[in-house]
Amino acid sequence: MRLREIAERLGCRLEGDGDIEIVRIASLQQAQPGDLSFVANARYLGQLATTKASAVILGTRARDGRSPCAVLRSDDPYSTFARAVSLFVQTAPPAKGVDRLSAVASDAAIGADVSIGPFVTVGAGASIGARTIVYPNAVIGPGAHIGDDCVIHAHASIRERVVVGNRVILQNGAVLGSDGYGFARQKDGTHLKIPQHADVVIEDDVEIGANSTIDRPAIGETRIRAGTKIDNLVHVAHGVTVGRRTLLAAQVGIAGSTVIDDDVMVAGQSGITGHIEIGRGVKVGAKSAVLQSVEPGGFVTGTPAFAHAEWRKASIVFRSLPTLKKRIEELEQKITELEEKLAACRTPTDR
Amino acid sequence: MRLREIAERLGCRLEGDGDIEIVRIASLQQAQPGDLSFVANARYLGQLATTKASAVILGTRARDGRSPCAVLRSDDPYSTFARAVSLFVQTAPPAKGVDRLSAVASDAAIGADVSIGPFVTVGAGASIGARTIVYPNAVIGPGAHIGDDCVIHAHASIRERVVVGNRVILQNGAVLGSDGYGFARQKDGTHLKIPQHADVVIEDDVEIGANSTIDRPAIGETRIRAGTKIDNLVHVAHGVTVGRRTLLAAQVGIAGSTVIDDDVMVAGQSGITGHIEIGRGVKVGAKSAVLQSVEPGGFVTGTPAFAHAEWRKASIVFRSLPTLKKRIEELEQKITELEEKLAACRTPTDR
Amino acid sequence: MRLREIAERLGCRLEGDGDIEIVRIASLQQAQPGDLSFVANARYLGQLATTKASAVILGTRARDGRSPCAVLRSDDPYSTFARAVSLFVQTAPPAKGVDRLSAVASDAAIGADVSIGPFVTVGAGASIGARTIVYPNAVIGPGAHIGDDCVIHAHASIRERVVVGNRVILQNGAVLGSDGYGFARQKDGTHLKIPQHADVVIEDDVEIGANSTIDRPAIGETRIRAGTKIDNLVHVAHGVTVGRRTLLAAQVGIAGSTVIDDDVMVAGQSGITGHIEIGRGVKVGAKSAVLQSVEPGGFVTGTPAFAHAEWRKASIVFRSLPTLKKRIEELEQKITELEEKLAACRTPTDR
Repeated sequence: MRLREIAERLGCRLEGDGDIEIVRIASLQQAQPGDLSFVANARYLGQLATTKASAVILGTRARDGRSPCAVLRSDDPYSTFARAVSLFVQTAPPAKGVDRLSAVASDAAIGADVSIGPFVTVGAGASIGARTIVYPNAVIGPGAHIGDDCVIHAHASIRERVVVGNRVILQNGAVLGSDGYGFARQKDGTHLKIPQHADVVIEDDVEIGANSTIDRPAIGETRIRAGTKIDNLVHVAHGVTVGRRTLLAAQVGIAGSTVIDDDVMVAGQSGITGHIEIGRGVKVGAKSAVLQSVEPGGFVTGTPAFAHAEWRKASIVFRSLPTLKKRIEELEQKITELEEKLAACRTPTDR
Repeated sequence: MRLREIAERLGCRLEGDGDIEIVRIASLQQAQPGDLSFVANARYLGQLATTKASAVILGTRARDGRSPCAVLRSDDPYSTFARAVSLFVQTAPPAKGVDRLSAVASDAAIGADVSIGPFVTVGAGASIGARTIVYPNAVIGPGAHIGDDCVIHAHASIRERVVVGNRVILQNGAVLGSDGYGFARQKDGTHLKIPQHADVVIEDDVEIGANSTIDRPAIGETRIRAGTKIDNLVHVAHGVTVGRRTLLAAQVGIAGSTVIDDDVMVAGQSGITGHIEIGRGVKVGAKSAVLQSVEPGGFVTGTPAFAHAEWRKASIVFRSLPTLKKRIEELEQKITELEEKLAACRTPTDR
Repeated sequence: MRLREIAERLGCRLEGDGDIEIVRIASLQQAQPGDLSFVANARYLGQLATTKASAVILGTRARDGRSPCAVLRSDDPYSTFARAVSLFVQTAPPAKGVDRLSAVASDAAIGADVSIGPFVTVGAGASIGARTIVYPNAVIGPGAHIGDDCVIHAHASIRERVVVGNRVILQNGAVLGSDGYGFARQKDGTHLKIPQHADVVIEDDVEIGANSTIDRPAIGETRIRAGTKIDNLVHVAHGVTVGRRTLLAAQVGIAGSTVIDDDVMVAGQSGITGHIEIGRGVKVGAKSAVLQSVEPGGFVTGTPAFAHAEWRKASIVFRSLPTLKKRIEELEQKITELEEKLAACRTPTDR
């Protein structure tokens, strides 16, 4: 595709030769002639001088006097990069229709232009919206409802009666509606299972990563609100609500009944305990354990988590703890010496 | 169902109108008229005054003078709640029999009233006990033995020769008997795979969460003892023994050959290193790394883990480390000043 | 098998009765008569005196004067144990050929002596090398290429166009090529998905554990180099490169675009942030969060991670933080007293 056409389709101002033929999107460092690259972070502007890319997407205010190639100017280079990638995607979607090797219940409602691959099970009373793609070996339970334009990758499990909105993407092996971890301890020490049969709702435009698990509760519901993106191997326990446009990075765990508000960002491998509230716009640093509710706009890190800025300072001091301990010992030694000297000093004056 | 009937079936003392029609179980806060709620923790008794529930399960000694609705009295409100939930479950089990789209080996032993869904594979010589339900797309390997009344959810993998007891529940994507992570480092730095073909035994009444993995060892066995409940995304390595009635919360990892005794509770995202022993009744706090054996009855937290009560105190001091450092610096400054003053002080007396 | 034959096949020097019939490999503690055991770590030599094993593999320099049974001498007892285990493995591989209940695209290239189980999907244009075993319900996407002598366990997902080398082992539920977690935040707070359609390459002799996930990037590639072994529930994000012979233990997570060199060892539950470099031979201690690049040969631990030896010392001091705080308070008290005494002391001399 010629650079001029790309500029037009992305709505960018073109600086340089619009006739260049672009064949690929690549990073500055890996780019070769024929590639379109991008700088979304001023930190990487220095790499611009040595890139072999034929063209590069830059911010309208980027200080790039040295750019050795054609430039596409954009107010938001990262989003423009995202759309540029879309221009070069060549993957063909699977064929429409229901594969003859699937097991679709006779009373399931299958929308227009749906694609259902081999070895897919669709239970009684389930419904699948228009243009949704169900890849091979996915399982959709009885009474589950899936909206339009969803993508259900191979080995995803959507359990009975789970409700999935429109444009939802489930990566491979994601599980929606597995039984929550709820038991009542009996006097003999055994654990009585509390049946977990209540609702799971995944709203529009949610993406759930590979092998992540969203549990169903005994009562109430588990809900992932619209536009939230969940990475791989994330655990969302029973009765949790995750707000809109929230980001849960890989291997995060949210314990039961916790409520997470909109626009929250939880970094990788962090955990949030049960029955607390995480306010709107909160950020949780990587590998933290949040054990108390966090006010809107807060940024917490650590185990247990507290204000990120304080955590950073404390973490730096942590490294020097052996030295601090030694300094305390030296102080104690000096104090003892001072006390002795003072005793010796005072004795004459007391005379 | 009328409240009077519920009281009888749950063995509770009824206080109030037994003719109320109950349609659902709900939390105090979410309950509507027609709902039965519960208070299992005195902490939540305050919410009783404002609930819209028509009835509530309360402890026999609860101080609930203000209860605005009918009451079911119970010695153990949480267990009574668990049984109440069971009364309202309406999920129909899948049809009995072997789905024609499954692949069941001709010599597999299938018990009475078993349900095997579509795209289930049952290997040669495997056996499945009476009334066990195998959901779609589960795989049961050759020679595996599964007891009576088990529930194997979709996409669970039970590998060759794994032994599963009675009333075991596997959530979606759980893996039993994957190869343990065992390699012998060679002189050239490569890793020689140690074949992992020994036994995995899951005893009666165990539940294993979605996408959790229980590895098989090279020698000996991996064993999960009766009544233990394992949450989602948990890793149990090769050769581990987990005792009876133990609880492993989500994203916990247990490294190879470790022995965990009965009635242990490991909170979410904690890890336990290999080749150690965790005594009976031990508790491990959330997001801990247990690197040494723990005596029976211990409660440890932290990375590395130590006594929980001490960890809590140390964690609180951790937050104020920058202040402590400053205090040490001030002390050093004062000591220097004191030393100077004392030198000045002593000089005249020495004259 | 007679011990003499085992000694010959393992290339060990035999000490004792070569006519002993060995039926199993077992640990020193669990061994019974008829078992062959081993001591790979001098720490366990003490258990030798009480083992019931009929024979034991020992190092050529082991101090084992008390060995109560026959001995096989080896330069590398652990590797010899690994090979001994192989001698006793009796698992029959699945039948060769393509199961009639699979869905193999007509243009897929299936090598000689391949085994494809029931409910396996192989997409258009995919290829599978000679002698590779694909267990039931695995899914191989369109255009994926899998080498010779691979083992793909049940429920593994190999997405479109993923390239897998020779002798690669995927445990159950492993996912190769799921979409990376890449979004561009829009001005209205929504997240624009950056299409993730670039390459994933798994080189020769790699093993990937159960339910681990290897994401594909938007541009460039995700690559796991030859001989690397990855445990269960590990997350490798988009654009990551993992070097040769590297070990990633269970529940490790590697964030996007990070480059890990050869011969690295990352212990369980550790995380490595994105866009950094982990040098050759680096070790990362358990449950660490590596937030900065690490030089070759480094050994780091902690959250955030720093030099392991320093982390150990700091961790020990951490436990005594409440005591240290008290000592600082005592010092402050003593300083105040000293200052007062000195003031009292100086007054007379000043006169």
